[in-house]
Amino acid sequence: MKDQWKHGGNVYETRRKLGVSNEKIVDFSANINPVGWPKGLKKALIEGLDDLIHYPDPDYPELKEAISKYTQTDSKWIQLGNGAIELLYMLVEYMCPQKATVIAPGFIEYERSLMRYGAEIEWMDLVEGEAFQLNFERFKKSVQSDTDLVILCSPNNPTGHLIQKEELVNMVMHCKKMNCPMIVDESFIDFVGNEASITDLIEAHSKLYILRSMTKFFAIPGLRLGYLLTSDQALHSWCEEYRTPWMINHLANVAGITVLQDAEFVKKSLDVVPHLRVQLCEALRAFKKLNVYESQANYVFFKSEYEGLDLKTLLLKYGIMIRSCSNYRGLNHSYYRIAVKTEEENRRLINVLREIIPE
Amino acid sequence: MKDQWKHGGNVYETRRKLGVSNEKIVDFSANINPVGWPKGLKKALIEGLDDLIHYPDPDYPELKEAISKYTQTDSKWIQLGNGAIELLYMLVEYMCPQKATVIAPGFIEYERSLMRYGAEIEWMDLVEGEAFQLNFERFKKSVQSDTDLVILCSPNNPTGHLIQKEELVNMVMHCKKMNCPMIVDESFIDFVGNEASITDLIEAHSKLYILRSMTKFFAIPGLRLGYLLTSDQALHSWCEEYRTPWMINHLANVAGITVLQDAEFVKKSLDVVPHLRVQLCEALRAFKKLNVYESQANYVFFKSEYEGLDLKTLLLKYGIMIRSCSNYRGLNHSYYRIAVKTEEENRRLINVLREIIPE
Repeated sequence: MKDQWKHGGNVYETRRKLGVSNEKIVDFSANINPVGWPKGLKKALIEGLDDLIHYPDPDYPELKEAISKYTQTDSKWIQLGNGAIELLYMLVEYMCPQKATVIAPGFIEYERSLMRYGAEIEWMDLVEGEAFQLNFERFKKSVQSDTDLVILCSPNNPTGHLIQKEELVNMVMHCKKMNCPMIVDESFIDFVGNEASITDLIEAHSKLYILRSMTKFFAIPGLRLGYLLTSDQALHSWCEEYRTPWMINHLANVAGITVLQDAEFVKKSLDVVPHLRVQLCEALRAFKKLNVYESQANYVFFKSEYEGLDLKTLLLKYGIMIRSCSNYRGLNHSYYRIAVKTEEENRRLINVLREIIPE
Repeated sequence: MKDQWKHGGNVYETRRKLGVSNEKIVDFSANINPVGWPKGLKKALIEGLDDLIHYPDPDYPELKEAISKYTQTDSKWIQLGNGAIELLYMLVEYMCPQKATVIAPGFIEYERSLMRYGAEIEWMDLVEGEAFQLNFERFKKSVQSDTDLVILCSPNNPTGHLIQKEELVNMVMHCKKMNCPMIVDESFIDFVGNEASITDLIEAHSKLYILRSMTKFFAIPGLRLGYLLTSDQALHSWCEEYRTPWMINHLANVAGITVLQDAEFVKKSLDVVPHLRVQLCEALRAFKKLNVYESQANYVFFKSEYEGLDLKTLLLKYGIMIRSCSNYRGLNHSYYRIAVKTEEENRRLINVLREIIPE
């Protein structure tokens, strides 16, 4: 994979480079729930292995039912994907926009998917002076009558900024007025809670497309599972006609059904992760030249003003992976994103940073 | 999923309809290797579960290496897919043909993928009088200078007909002469053996695209895994730039690496499956009005001349699923495809057929 499009979380590559086993590596570069796995997941997966000799049911009715309950959305408004990214690409192909407005800094696959389908990109550049936060005024300026598509993310990746619900409602309504399709990536919304989500707006604007990932919150990035919520009936008909069957592998299907039933896991994660994030932010802020941004997600975004210190490379020597944000538009080598991990892992990171950073 | 595009193998739907458990159903409608799983597969999958908390390595170097060895193809000529179908759609998107020539009867996803990208389809209709076999003369007539793409399959699905290697070489060379891209679907070639494959031709015609599935021979349809072999460097560069990361889930990756090392399983399957197929064909031919076609694959194609007997529906009452070929172009309700299963399962099918068919 080209450096320009690289994501965090490649522990296998790191393992090969360092010549160590996975256990020796602590991966802060992928944003996976530190609470671990929902109850019963491993057992369900082991029990599911024998059914791998069958094709999945291409309609996935149980999984759609489980998502419907979890999101309070009619199951007819759900499309499943081999990760949320697959659905993003599908949406861009389906809409084939000439001109799309995209949040920056933002997840790099937005840009890639638009390039694949030949769209011109107008950047909605967030600025350091405003802590890289998107507000309605900035949004309104960017979404004009000739905008074919707008893509944003809340909480945003890599900044962790959550757009307040009232602001987001205004944005959706502005898009509706402009008849502009809008993709809202809620891949990290589970870490905030469903009440921050705008799934309740999908019937208000049929060109609102909400992307959700089950990879992060339920800690199964290796299985690939995401979904799309939209009331755009034409899109659902198009999917019925043209989407490949069996996009979701059987174990992702089993995992999805299992984890969505575990209300306790959801509650626990919503208790534990914010607490760990606040702790981690405080510890980072103790370093004089780390500028730590407010985050509502399970990761923390910061700028380092320690010139000449390449934190990513230095930490890697200790087996710690973090995400350099140098390949995000509008950012550079001074910006980093780290996942909120367990108390012990976070402490290890902080201790190593104390060794590395001369104060 | 619309009836028009339905495949075989939906045991879950059948289970719901009949109100019985999976074990009560014998599925002859999906073509899965009856030999079972390669040695060590289940163990490898169980050991792989803990790594589901990591994203896969988007370069999948070990799996590509294993496929390279198995197919005797340079690993730089391999693309992996979430099932071979995903790669088929990707190829059609990439080539965007105006006019494509497609074998008929053939796998229905060829038509769907071409419709998705707006291609006009010219059918290469095989005829009953020639036992639905494709030969070079027929091929040459269909592939003209204005053909943008040709798609065929060997052994063909649903007929089981294997195009002889010399004929296939002529077809590839004709395409090269016409500068016509050619997709050859070898999803069932493992059941014949690598020597029947034309992987050795990919460097002779850079617009030859060979699709392979690991779903059927290695009995893991639930995991989704296929690959594409081609020496088209422009396509590989396009993939590098535009394909979504992590198309292959971690367990498919683990499975692929594990099963390709099991030479004994390959040998055993190549011994056992043809033997079972011959046995099954003989037993079917004992029915006066079943016209059984020659097959080189792990399935058997036949025409029933017992008018008024809907074998699919009748067998389902006994918990036996078979594939009606009524939604294949050029076929109708009289044609069926059944997988070659274990000796015991095949006997059960034959016994039930004896009850159903009045002779």
